Amino acid sequence: MTITLRPGTTVMFTGDSITDSQRLESEDGLGFGYPLRIAGEWGFRHPDRPVTWLNTGIGGHKTMDLKVRWQTDVLDARPDVVSILVGVNDMGWHTIDPDGHVIPAEDFAAAYDRLLAPLAAAGTELILIEPFLLPISGSVQAGDTHVDEEIRKEWRADLDPKIQVVRDLARTYGAHLLAADGMFAELSAATGPEYWAADGVHPTPAGHAALAAAWLRLVE
Amino acid sequence: MTITLRPGTTVMFTGDSITDSQRLESEDGLGFGYPLRIAGEWGFRHPDRPVTWLNTGIGGHKTMDLKVRWQTDVLDARPDVVSILVGVNDMGWHTIDPDGHVIPAEDFAAAYDRLLAPLAAAGTELILIEPFLLPISGSVQAGDTHVDEEIRKEWRADLDPKIQVVRDLARTYGAHLLAADGMFAELSAATGPEYWAADGVHPTPAGHAALAAAWLRLVE
Amino acid sequence: MTITLRPGTTVMFTGDSITDSQRLESEDGLGFGYPLRIAGEWGFRHPDRPVTWLNTGIGGHKTMDLKVRWQTDVLDARPDVVSILVGVNDMGWHTIDPDGHVIPAEDFAAAYDRLLAPLAAAGTELILIEPFLLPISGSVQAGDTHVDEEIRKEWRADLDPKIQVVRDLARTYGAHLLAADGMFAELSAATGPEYWAADGVHPTPAGHAALAAAWLRLVE
Amino acid sequence: MTITLRPGTTVMFTGDSITDSQRLESEDGLGFGYPLRIAGEWGFRHPDRPVTWLNTGIGGHKTMDLKVRWQTDVLDARPDVVSILVGVNDMGWHTIDPDGHVIPAEDFAAAYDRLLAPLAAAGTELILIEPFLLPISGSVQAGDTHVDEEIRKEWRADLDPKIQVVRDLARTYGAHLLAADGMFAELSAATGPEYWAADGVHPTPAGHAALAAAWLRLVE
Amino acid sequence: MTITLRPGTTVMFTGDSITDSQRLESEDGLGFGYPLRIAGEWGFRHPDRPVTWLNTGIGGHKTMDLKVRWQTDVLDARPDVVSILVGVNDMGWHTIDPDGHVIPAEDFAAAYDRLLAPLAAAGTELILIEPFLLPISGSVQAGDTHVDEEIRKEWRADLDPKIQVVRDLARTYGAHLLAADGMFAELSAATGPEYWAADGVHPTPAGHAALAAAWLRLVE
Amino acid sequence: MTITLRPGTTVMFTGDSITDSQRLESEDGLGFGYPLRIAGEWGFRHPDRPVTWLNTGIGGHKTMDLKVRWQTDVLDARPDVVSILVGVNDMGWHTIDPDGHVIPAEDFAAAYDRLLAPLAAAGTELILIEPFLLPISGSVQAGDTHVDEEIRKEWRADLDPKIQVVRDLARTYGAHLLAADGMFAELSAATGPEYWAADGVHPTPAGHAALAAAWLRLVE
Amino acid sequence: MTITLRPGTTVMFTGDSITDSQRLESEDGLGFGYPLRIAGEWGFRHPDRPVTWLNTGIGGHKTMDLKVRWQTDVLDARPDVVSILVGVNDMGWHTIDPDGHVIPAEDFAAAYDRLLAPLAAAGTELILIEPFLLPISGSVQAGDTHVDEEIRKEWRADLDPKIQVVRDLARTYGAHLLAADGMFAELSAATGPEYWAADGVHPTPAGHAALAAAWLRLVE
Amino acid sequence: MTITLRPGTTVMFTGDSITDSQRLESEDGLGFGYPLRIAGEWGFRHPDRPVTWLNTGIGGHKTMDLKVRWQTDVLDARPDVVSILVGVNDMGWHTIDPDGHVIPAEDFAAAYDRLLAPLAAAGTELILIEPFLLPISGSVQAGDTHVDEEIRKEWRADLDPKIQVVRDLARTYGAHLLAADGMFAELSAATGPEYWAADGVHPTPAGHAALAAAWLRLVE
Repeated sequence: MTITLRPGTTVMFTGDSITDSQRLESEDGLGFGYPLRIAGEWGFRHPDRPVTWLNTGIGGHKTMDLKVRWQTDVLDARPDVVSILVGVNDMGWHTIDPDGHVIPAEDFAAAYDRLLAPLAAAGTELILIEPFLLPISGSVQAGDTHVDEEIRKEWRADLDPKIQVVRDLARTYGAHLLAADGMFAELSAATGPEYWAADGVHPTPAGHAALAAAWLRLVE
Repeated sequence: MTITLRPGTTVMFTGDSITDSQRLESEDGLGFGYPLRIAGEWGFRHPDRPVTWLNTGIGGHKTMDLKVRWQTDVLDARPDVVSILVGVNDMGWHTIDPDGHVIPAEDFAAAYDRLLAPLAAAGTELILIEPFLLPISGSVQAGDTHVDEEIRKEWRADLDPKIQVVRDLARTYGAHLLAADGMFAELSAATGPEYWAADGVHPTPAGHAALAAAWLRLVE
Repeated sequence: MTITLRPGTTVMFTGDSITDSQRLESEDGLGFGYPLRIAGEWGFRHPDRPVTWLNTGIGGHKTMDLKVRWQTDVLDARPDVVSILVGVNDMGWHTIDPDGHVIPAEDFAAAYDRLLAPLAAAGTELILIEPFLLPISGSVQAGDTHVDEEIRKEWRADLDPKIQVVRDLARTYGAHLLAADGMFAELSAATGPEYWAADGVHPTPAGHAALAAAWLRLVE
Repeated sequence: MTITLRPGTTVMFTGDSITDSQRLESEDGLGFGYPLRIAGEWGFRHPDRPVTWLNTGIGGHKTMDLKVRWQTDVLDARPDVVSILVGVNDMGWHTIDPDGHVIPAEDFAAAYDRLLAPLAAAGTELILIEPFLLPISGSVQAGDTHVDEEIRKEWRADLDPKIQVVRDLARTYGAHLLAADGMFAELSAATGPEYWAADGVHPTPAGHAALAAAWLRLVE
Repeated sequence: MTITLRPGTTVMFTGDSITDSQRLESEDGLGFGYPLRIAGEWGFRHPDRPVTWLNTGIGGHKTMDLKVRWQTDVLDARPDVVSILVGVNDMGWHTIDPDGHVIPAEDFAAAYDRLLAPLAAAGTELILIEPFLLPISGSVQAGDTHVDEEIRKEWRADLDPKIQVVRDLARTYGAHLLAADGMFAELSAATGPEYWAADGVHPTPAGHAALAAAWLRLVE
Repeated sequence: MTITLRPGTTVMFTGDSITDSQRLESEDGLGFGYPLRIAGEWGFRHPDRPVTWLNTGIGGHKTMDLKVRWQTDVLDARPDVVSILVGVNDMGWHTIDPDGHVIPAEDFAAAYDRLLAPLAAAGTELILIEPFLLPISGSVQAGDTHVDEEIRKEWRADLDPKIQVVRDLARTYGAHLLAADGMFAELSAATGPEYWAADGVHPTPAGHAALAAAWLRLVE
Repeated sequence: MTITLRPGTTVMFTGDSITDSQRLESEDGLGFGYPLRIAGEWGFRHPDRPVTWLNTGIGGHKTMDLKVRWQTDVLDARPDVVSILVGVNDMGWHTIDPDGHVIPAEDFAAAYDRLLAPLAAAGTELILIEPFLLPISGSVQAGDTHVDEEIRKEWRADLDPKIQVVRDLARTYGAHLLAADGMFAELSAATGPEYWAADGVHPTPAGHAALAAAWLRLVE
Repeated sequence: MTITLRPGTTVMFTGDSITDSQRLESEDGLGFGYPLRIAGEWGFRHPDRPVTWLNTGIGGHKTMDLKVRWQTDVLDARPDVVSILVGVNDMGWHTIDPDGHVIPAEDFAAAYDRLLAPLAAAGTELILIEPFLLPISGSVQAGDTHVDEEIRKEWRADLDPKIQVVRDLARTYGAHLLAADGMFAELSAATGPEYWAADGVHPTPAGHAALAAAWLRLVE
């Protein structure tokens, strides 16, 4: 029940800053996060099965931002596999939506659904990664925001229903699900969350390695 | 970083109906759920390391209900390891709290914390299992309640912060965490959630086996 | 020479209290004994091969009791595999037969044979589990009876020929045999019989786990 | 929980014809049965740990016959390990006891107990092999007797309580038990009992190999 | 390049006393040597591939003795595989040939060749075991003869060319060769030859186990 | 003969752009190349042995550039392990040295030696990675330079003696050597060099993965 | 992506003294170096796949010397696989070319190319082994030359471009490459180069074993 | 029961042409036979345990020739392990002994014994390799002699008692024995003897590899 990557397969990673990870500044366009690791590890292990790896994540993007650029950034590339990690910015992370309000889970669901529908129609294999927020404690600087316990609770209140949306959509579209939020919570119990994501959102190298290892278990 | 079960260790499972699983009607007092499986599998594999297994789960119980009976049901037994799975009833599951209101996450946290404090003080090993609700779709009968999409969303809105509370407490007390909510979501992507818990809450035999297998990875 | 369980296979466990194990009180109808474990373990390991597991054991039942309800409880379900564990109640366990006398081995054999004949005719795969009585010593409370050495000897005198009947029928019908009586005797040499069945008849969780493990070796 | 065979260990097999297996006619005095196989296999695998293997089985012997020659044949040899397989001749196998009557299980137990007591007192490791009778069907020639179904049932009625005696004594003396009767019944389900013991009592080479393999699992 | 033993294969062992090993006194007719072990081990490991094992070795026989009874004892049985171990009696072992003289290697070769020719013509698989004499030192009793160093040297002078004959015939007939003489010499370097064959000719149980293990590597 | 990384070890990677790989733009300061992969993979596999990973590579730097900032960038950090990859810019890569001339191998050796001497004196473990240039063919854009066959030959003429310098220094200082130039040549024979480094100098993700895998074999 | 050696394959090793290794004085004509080891190891492991091994290396030969005798020594033998190790004598090793000058890399490339062209046209599998010079230090006697640091540097300056030629040709002709120069440098870091080649050119037995092991990984 | 080769161990191979194998012409003095292979394979596998390998075999030498040069060639080197392969020239191989007669086995034994005595007294580990002659058929050129069946028989008649002498001495001195004659006979049954030694005496590369593999199993 894994996805087989044959020679010539095109795999696209898309989403927000966790996927982006400065891809525009990197020569190969993959950034320095989990997509880079997956591409490197696969490429090293399977030189006889070259895969085209694409990354169209953009930092700060919400699901609705993806929708705007979906045709040109994703559909036009005719990928065989699409891996999506989005949602943490639909949470109140940057506080204010471009249109001036926090995005309700229903809108998140509707927007996400519109991303998946044309891919499913085209027979594309789908991998949905849950958005995640690690249980950091105390007060940290996350992006532009100073985060204390109160803010973190608000964020979770916003994020949790969106995690449910991703799970529901995985069910609806027969996609593979990577339950990243629980994975990081469990890993954090032994080491503290800072080991895996210092600000609770952007993974450390070890955190990206954990994501990549879980992702690679879904393909062969 | 696993817990070693030596001959003569006393392990107590406690919580609500998922742990209880009709324990009072069963001869060995372990019920028919994951505690039974863990006790049986361990007992069969390690006859040279006999463990006393106790189950004090009670169906329908909330964290506050555990608090009331904590001294007599848990502390007095002087267990070496305590495994707790509670929270789904703190959610609006039976709608109305005995005291007449839904329990806020803060109260859940405070009550749960008071459970852990004396155990930690006594050097007891702790295993915290996240409360979970599987992404069932459509309309099902769960306990006394007819559950539709709307109700499920309300439940998740209530449950999700309590999952965070459990994760925070695991961090605070150095407990082992079993991230059951994400585990069941990931398993459900391939088979549907009904395969693991028909009503989204009470595991099927396969669901209890999944819980037991994850739990047994934490001990040796 | 094992039985292959394909997706959609229906497996029925039937017999007496060891199989029943309070199945009517359990939500999934499997009780808390070895059938539950087998269903759970298989379900967890093989989500791609879902099996329908049925349990129609009834506590206290003798072979003749099975015969009365065989058509409705077993044959009408058209199972692909039937696993039978019966005989300990045909022993003088509850002392008095409904018809007022201990059941002779010949009658046990005849009744058991009539259970198997229609299944064999329908091409059903058969697994026969020997009835067993563990070598408890001293005086214990077993069901309604206070058991001392004398009673245990009478019981064995009654049970042993019935174990032979099961072995003979396994040979006659090409069934798989699970030699549970010797298995428990051998396991008991190291730990004492109470570890596997406190009253010598009803397995502990470890005992049910041993039965389930032996049973699962017969299928794949 | 296995017995360690160190260089210089003396192991004695004793019992009846199954152990004897024409030992007096064989140059090494071990006969051609399971003791020979055990000695050969161990000797071949562990030339750095030479063991003295002794066989004092005598065909036709009952427990009481062993008692008569126990001091000279067993105790005087000061063995480190004693492995006993006896009981099938205490069954009505040769019909008439030298003293003119079938031996009751109580007498069998008392006689067997008197064999074990001095060994246990001397700290000798004990391996007790259950006497066994395979579920042959139809009419066969076993030793001097023409065996039909009726006779076989009488034999089982006599043998079964004696198997229980062996199990009880294993418990009492902390001996290792080899549950041979059930082992052969289970093996016979697939191939027929003749494959393992043509007359139901005396193993074929494959039957002796099965006994030897089970025995060798008890030592290291 | 091993021989496959399919269900229903007939394997015949033949030769002299090492093969015979009192087969006429044993119930299954296989004796207590390496043929018994091979039959037992194969039978225990492969109950789904029953093989008919025959032993027509006769103690004291020379190659010419085999020739006399070859049609009735070997060819008439139409074996699929024939395993021959002969030659130690063609050596001056019993000193005097029935016809009154030691058998020259040429006669041994001619007689052995006449054994193999009809089998090869019938497509029978052949296994030739080198005759062997272990490097015992000092003076031992072997069969009827008191053997000192002088006699042993005479024996070797007689045996060695016959070992060459067997090797040549294996080459000529495409038979499998079991180089037993060197195998026992190498094993003896560590333990002394008495460990494997007390009189240098007749294997101990460990010696027969070594032969059987080497033989079983030639089949599958 | 590997280096053991204990909890609390500080490992510093230093060198030029291949090590730098935009580290200043990355949040964790490791860049997106082989140091990132090593840190991530180690961190994920060994959460119980946290290591401090530092990267002070700077794009375009030559050995002499390292010397200038060695005290502040490397020695002051008191690393336990230092891994150096430098030399490709000492080659005529950017054509003109800041001081106006190509750097002779002798000067490269002297400068490199001065880097190692204080580390060796402090007992620091050393890993030296050979500078490498993959056998790209045709004309490619590498950094600021349009590279044709002629230029590539000049580069190799310059680089090769510097590779020898690194090997000599590894010998002199007892450092571990990673023979990267040959490794990439061998990998390139099957896939073409572009698969591992499009411009022959800067590895692709698969190339960085190959470096990281080779590096991780040197530690445990 | 390995070369399969089928029964009847002809493999030719050719080159200079490292390949030659006194082949004319050896009975089998393979010399005592890596070709001998490869032939022996393969022959021992795969007696069912006999290969014809040929060695036409001649000590002191340069690529141009091979060209002169290519038709008669290599092409006429119609080998299925040709393994070439040449180049160290094209280096200034014997100082003066027969035609009176050091051979430029271009001439080396042209001559080597003319060796490969007819083989590639005939579909021959090709294995190219890089010429190598180990980083010996101090002053050693290599062949007729007293080698100090200065000479070694001149040699490397000459050899390195020729290594590049071999890599380029491997790419051009789809040959397998054995990157021997880096392999020996890496091995030498731990033990010193003298362990693998006392004069830096001619391998010790351990060095030939390293070459043979690497070569055997290219075939199956 | 293997010999441990520690760093600094000196191992000496000695004997006749099979050991010699042109050692004087080889740079490392080991020849091209099994000593070379053993030294190379060990050196490659265990660079952390360097061993001094010496070869003092001389082609054509008999045991008595060894005796003459034993002090200077063997004892003076104070080896830790001595491996001897001698005897085929004591056979009538070169027909005429220097002293004008074939060497009787007794003299061979006496001479060989005098080689071993001082080594045993010094605590040297001993490995004795049986002299061997493969069962070549037809007429071949072996050394200076044209060998037909008749000659080969004479040779065997001479060689066989000398093989016994080696086995006896191995026993007497607690040496390790390598039973090469039988090993080659068994290997030859599948492939013909020419595959392992074309003239029946001097191994092919595959034959030397077989000897080396067997030898390496005696050390660790």
